[in-house]
Amino acid sequence: MAPRRDLRAPGAGLSGTLTGSLLAFVRSILNVTYHVRSDARSIDERARAIAVEQSVEMPVAAITDDYVRREIIGRVTAIAEVSSGLFAVEIALAGATVAHDAGQLINMLFGNTSLHADVLLADVELPPDLVTSFAGPRHGLSGVRQRVGAQKRALTCSALKPQGLPAAKLAELARRFAEGGIDYIKDDHGLADQAFSPFAARVDAIAAALADVARQSGHAVRYVPSLSGDLDDMRNQIAVAREAGIDTVMAAPMIMGFANFHRLVRENPDIAFFAHPTMAGTAIAPPLLLGKLFRMLGADAVIFPNHGGRFGYSRETCSHLATTARADWHGLRPSVPVPAGGMTRDRVGEMLDFYGVDIMLLIGGALLEAGERLAEATQAFVAQVRSCHVQEQGHDRS
Amino acid sequence: MAPRRDLRAPGAGLSGTLTGSLLAFVRSILNVTYHVRSDARSIDERARAIAVEQSVEMPVAAITDDYVRREIIGRVTAIAEVSSGLFAVEIALAGATVAHDAGQLINMLFGNTSLHADVLLADVELPPDLVTSFAGPRHGLSGVRQRVGAQKRALTCSALKPQGLPAAKLAELARRFAEGGIDYIKDDHGLADQAFSPFAARVDAIAAALADVARQSGHAVRYVPSLSGDLDDMRNQIAVAREAGIDTVMAAPMIMGFANFHRLVRENPDIAFFAHPTMAGTAIAPPLLLGKLFRMLGADAVIFPNHGGRFGYSRETCSHLATTARADWHGLRPSVPVPAGGMTRDRVGEMLDFYGVDIMLLIGGALLEAGERLAEATQAFVAQVRSCHVQEQGHDRS
Repeated sequence: MAPRRDLRAPGAGLSGTLTGSLLAFVRSILNVTYHVRSDARSIDERARAIAVEQSVEMPVAAITDDYVRREIIGRVTAIAEVSSGLFAVEIALAGATVAHDAGQLINMLFGNTSLHADVLLADVELPPDLVTSFAGPRHGLSGVRQRVGAQKRALTCSALKPQGLPAAKLAELARRFAEGGIDYIKDDHGLADQAFSPFAARVDAIAAALADVARQSGHAVRYVPSLSGDLDDMRNQIAVAREAGIDTVMAAPMIMGFANFHRLVRENPDIAFFAHPTMAGTAIAPPLLLGKLFRMLGADAVIFPNHGGRFGYSRETCSHLATTARADWHGLRPSVPVPAGGMTRDRVGEMLDFYGVDIMLLIGGALLEAGERLAEATQAFVAQVRSCHVQEQGHDRS
Repeated sequence: MAPRRDLRAPGAGLSGTLTGSLLAFVRSILNVTYHVRSDARSIDERARAIAVEQSVEMPVAAITDDYVRREIIGRVTAIAEVSSGLFAVEIALAGATVAHDAGQLINMLFGNTSLHADVLLADVELPPDLVTSFAGPRHGLSGVRQRVGAQKRALTCSALKPQGLPAAKLAELARRFAEGGIDYIKDDHGLADQAFSPFAARVDAIAAALADVARQSGHAVRYVPSLSGDLDDMRNQIAVAREAGIDTVMAAPMIMGFANFHRLVRENPDIAFFAHPTMAGTAIAPPLLLGKLFRMLGADAVIFPNHGGRFGYSRETCSHLATTARADWHGLRPSVPVPAGGMTRDRVGEMLDFYGVDIMLLIGGALLEAGERLAEATQAFVAQVRSCHVQEQGHDRS
């Protein structure tokens, strides 16, 4: 990597302030890193254009207001060539522009710049008070473990599918997963409030099936229904779920909107939230989007496509994502990484080696392929994961 | 383009049904087109994988349910090579999976497949009853024209910025735009509910300034405040705006979520909605996303980056987007295309030639550069647009 040019200069607005009052400054600035494809000659101008686009969005020369010139105009603070023709550009944006609104946060970080096909939002350092005001997971790794009484091992999860099945058939699948001793059973993210299995009917049927298994086995499995629709629909769905004794739900922040996701989390401190990555295929680095932002907004668990499955995330991306989701970060609880997307039982050992045990392993289709022997296949998966519980606990903060 | 292979076969599930009952079939199917980068050898398998991912998301062989096999599993209906290594793949998905939910619609169309960097969502043909149930713009081109008494010419718009200015200063800018005779004044999409100009204070100050100009000139300019936050925040903001006599607002469907945008539109039939493209930089073709989907959900006007401005949309993309937004389509009102993003007065003639007069021209920064002479610059812009009102009216449905 070419040397990083630090472009801050005393008195140069946002960045200049840093030399004045480090603490106050750090607390009120978003330090955003973009990766920009550009030739070396143009990168300075490209970087300045992004700083303007993501702040005042108008010709800087036409701005006369002192406060805006001093505090609001974005500043390029560093440029470094990451590889040939790819530059890491650091830009400082004013925290005051975010207004403690999660939707406005993503608008400020990437909004119009997302329309440039050659720019990736790579990372952001946020003011600590902003991070703590969003507050992160209400339950996190230890809470998600506690719900199923598993303090020292990786968690297990499977998925109810295919969509199109009636509630009774999904409940039958849930029963077999439960008989196999799984920890969490989530809806496929394609399950919404469809006529073939309406949300309320599905929740009632599945909750009843799982209660039945729990009475026989003493083993309380968590069902994680998927929320859909608008914010009010989701509120109603949470009410239905809570009524059925459910305390964990799944939601898709990229479809419902960051601010609405955060709102639901705030309104329901007793509920744990799994975040699903559907529609996350935007030019935002997955460790930032799923590991940092979803977590900050309150995702107790973040589902993501594991390397070597049906999707193209690299080993490095997955490792970085999981590390970010669990890192010490302004006192927020860690989120549980949930690598998924075409996983099979023969990858369990390798995944535990790769991620450690502070993780939830999600195997969906590969278990369902067992058909009549679903409970047995689940049992084998669960046994495999449980046998690894004595391994190294380095990541465990629970 | 290589010949398109029609892969439908009688009795082949979803696609086979077409031979049985054309009408019922067409009414209940989403015909989705993806552009997939692939080598020719792998494209059949890639296409099938997308059809499965966007429907049942599990191994098809493990599905025993008749209804799911017949109706729900996605089917590849055609594959054509668009250019070397780029394939158009057509997939039929069941309309029943959408559940008349706008969030679930985008989940079905692109959800997990958005995570594949080599797939673009190019287009979709939707069941007519789904389109008409979403209902589209409540006001559309003719309503947006009527609000400002302009039936036979292009509309004019500018933007209040930079963010960071207090409400009083933004109101002063609005006053000058109004004195210049502009039709619509929108908030910069970076304006949210920030401490430096809270939504309510901003709306009140700007509404008062514009009422003042209207009393003197008889010219009623429309202020279009930008909504932010979660669904409830936006409801409150609309209430504040309505109280101030405002009947037009701006929102960002990609940030607030499709279902919440659609909810706001349904709840507020008296309000016209401008849709902003912030965060629309995903792998969805802009004509589909902005011109078709935003319109279907109720955008009376769709703002998009014009070719040759600060963003990379091509002439062809812009033309296609504007055509789609105004096309005859299941009886929906046309949306007003609003090309923007670094436009200047010297492009007015060219843009009217390119788009026709059924359009809104948005010039922001280039007017604000006039500083003290903002009213005069606005007046010149408005005069330029008005002088073109006798041109060809081919696109006009108002």
